[in-house]
Amino acid sequence: MWKVSPTRLEDMCTAILRAAGASGHDARLVADHLVDNDILGHHSHGVIRLWDYIEAAHRGELIPDAGARIVNETPTTAQVDGGWALGQVVATFATDLAIEKARTAGVSVVTVRRVKHIGRLGRYAEQVAGAGLVSMIFTNGGGHGINQAPFRGTERRLCSNPIAMSVPSGLAGPFLLDMATSVAAEGKVRVYRARGVPTPPGWILDSDGNPSTDPEDFAEGGALLPLGRAEGHKGYALAFMVELLAGVMSGGGISGDPARSFSNDSMIVVIDPELFVPMAELEERSSILTEHLKDTRLADESQPVLYPGEPEAEARLANRGSDIELPDPVRQQLVSMLRRFSLPEPD
Amino acid sequence: MWKVSPTRLEDMCTAILRAAGASGHDARLVADHLVDNDILGHHSHGVIRLWDYIEAAHRGELIPDAGARIVNETPTTAQVDGGWALGQVVATFATDLAIEKARTAGVSVVTVRRVKHIGRLGRYAEQVAGAGLVSMIFTNGGGHGINQAPFRGTERRLCSNPIAMSVPSGLAGPFLLDMATSVAAEGKVRVYRARGVPTPPGWILDSDGNPSTDPEDFAEGGALLPLGRAEGHKGYALAFMVELLAGVMSGGGISGDPARSFSNDSMIVVIDPELFVPMAELEERSSILTEHLKDTRLADESQPVLYPGEPEAEARLANRGSDIELPDPVRQQLVSMLRRFSLPEPD
Repeated sequence: MWKVSPTRLEDMCTAILRAAGASGHDARLVADHLVDNDILGHHSHGVIRLWDYIEAAHRGELIPDAGARIVNETPTTAQVDGGWALGQVVATFATDLAIEKARTAGVSVVTVRRVKHIGRLGRYAEQVAGAGLVSMIFTNGGGHGINQAPFRGTERRLCSNPIAMSVPSGLAGPFLLDMATSVAAEGKVRVYRARGVPTPPGWILDSDGNPSTDPEDFAEGGALLPLGRAEGHKGYALAFMVELLAGVMSGGGISGDPARSFSNDSMIVVIDPELFVPMAELEERSSILTEHLKDTRLADESQPVLYPGEPEAEARLANRGSDIELPDPVRQQLVSMLRRFSLPEPD
Repeated sequence: MWKVSPTRLEDMCTAILRAAGASGHDARLVADHLVDNDILGHHSHGVIRLWDYIEAAHRGELIPDAGARIVNETPTTAQVDGGWALGQVVATFATDLAIEKARTAGVSVVTVRRVKHIGRLGRYAEQVAGAGLVSMIFTNGGGHGINQAPFRGTERRLCSNPIAMSVPSGLAGPFLLDMATSVAAEGKVRVYRARGVPTPPGWILDSDGNPSTDPEDFAEGGALLPLGRAEGHKGYALAFMVELLAGVMSGGGISGDPARSFSNDSMIVVIDPELFVPMAELEERSSILTEHLKDTRLADESQPVLYPGEPEAEARLANRGSDIELPDPVRQQLVSMLRRFSLPEPD
């Protein structure tokens, strides 16, 4: 493992992104998102992703110096064309736009298309909660990143189509839901594969459509099942709705009619809660709810009931100021990218 | 079993509701909702519910001649106080209000509190889709109807907190999601209990917190598990968000701080899709998506992939003009209510 300070890691990623053509502001923003995910322990969305971004830029699928453009807007809505710019830059722009509109109009909906990987959806939900607002975010893969079978089907037809939601809280972090509508995100299957251990039963099918617990079977063309296992019709219905909201309504790509390349087409809904309830009352009553749910007999005394978002809030507190530990191959990728751009290598 | 025409059944329910104090309009509306659910085969939300409504009115918990009132509003938002009126009347009023605001402002959010059982959530999602708009609806039990354990917990702490979503389609029915955030709705467990057969493993805990497949264990104080089974943290996070959106933001009741009595506190979000995509394009691209998902190798050739809402659309077509078959105890309840109000009995 490689131990590195978050600041140094962020500086390295920023330098690489700048060398690939991004502005100083955009490079810093993307680097901050990636390193923050590593701080939270969401390594699948951490600096390990930078290699893919630089490769996509090399192929011309991602344009690091492009910017987002508002295609049309009303006081409550906007459609954003990401111009195949860095996903985090486009999604941050669209989220800011939705926040601004909700502050004025009370509610807003912003869609985004032609946007590369936007990273951890929860980050944008946190951005909205940080502004004292409520969010619902729906994201597909623009008809790419197809890995999930529809309920009753045995072949890949959908992306893992995640949903995020957030509500401000008076606790250590906002109430935050951030979930794939498949039984698990593809990144989790990759972790099992890297460790060489079987995935839990009920997660994947092999390429012939048979239930499997071998992550290699997934990698060789198998499919993730929808959230819910035997009740997978619910996860599938959520995944289907995400295609409609994030793909069709953004004018982006969908399964069966894909975008030019992988695109995290999204819909961002923002609501001002103070048009409904004063913030002090929201915080007080949501704390009553949280305490009441935590005060429950447990299946396992070592596994307490958490509020959604508590794992992220805890990780942020626990890891503040600590070095990040990353596998050596991630360091090697960074070194390789630094060399490619003739940038100074880490010690 | 008792066979009865939908029209006659609706007339009987209307007469009972009028006799209990509802206006002709309101009585007809509630009767229509109840009978429509029986037509769809959603008998748990059919005329079997009328007995509870009349009993609640008798106890003074439901006020059949009350009406909903807008507590405060902006061009995009409103808070509705249901005044403990008939739930279907209040929810229809709130949905109409959300539709009207979304037509003008593009997006709207309406919350409702102090509202009795509103019935099948999908009905309001269908109402929005019928107006050519997109909906998301979140409903709790106002801190009552508690039947679901939080993830990792083994005691009832949450209602089954359903979510509905709809998008207009060019198909037989709208795209419609209508689901409990628990692994199954309580009504489904009741069906297993009535049949005297075990529930699927992974649905319920007994009152001591042990996994069970005996529906009697649920009836005697056990709990429903959250959607997702081993991935129940996802269903739980959805159920938690429903408490915040439907309960806290409506000013209604929540788990740990309940309303005066059972209240289907709700949040209704409506979006005008034509600010994002012309209806013809929405219909065309969503049909491409649907066809692509259906064109998938199946686990069981007799179980095709469906679009969300297809079962309801199929049931409506299949049962059009047919008599409804109801268990004899439902007929006996109706007769008893007709007698109570000195109304003519069925032949």
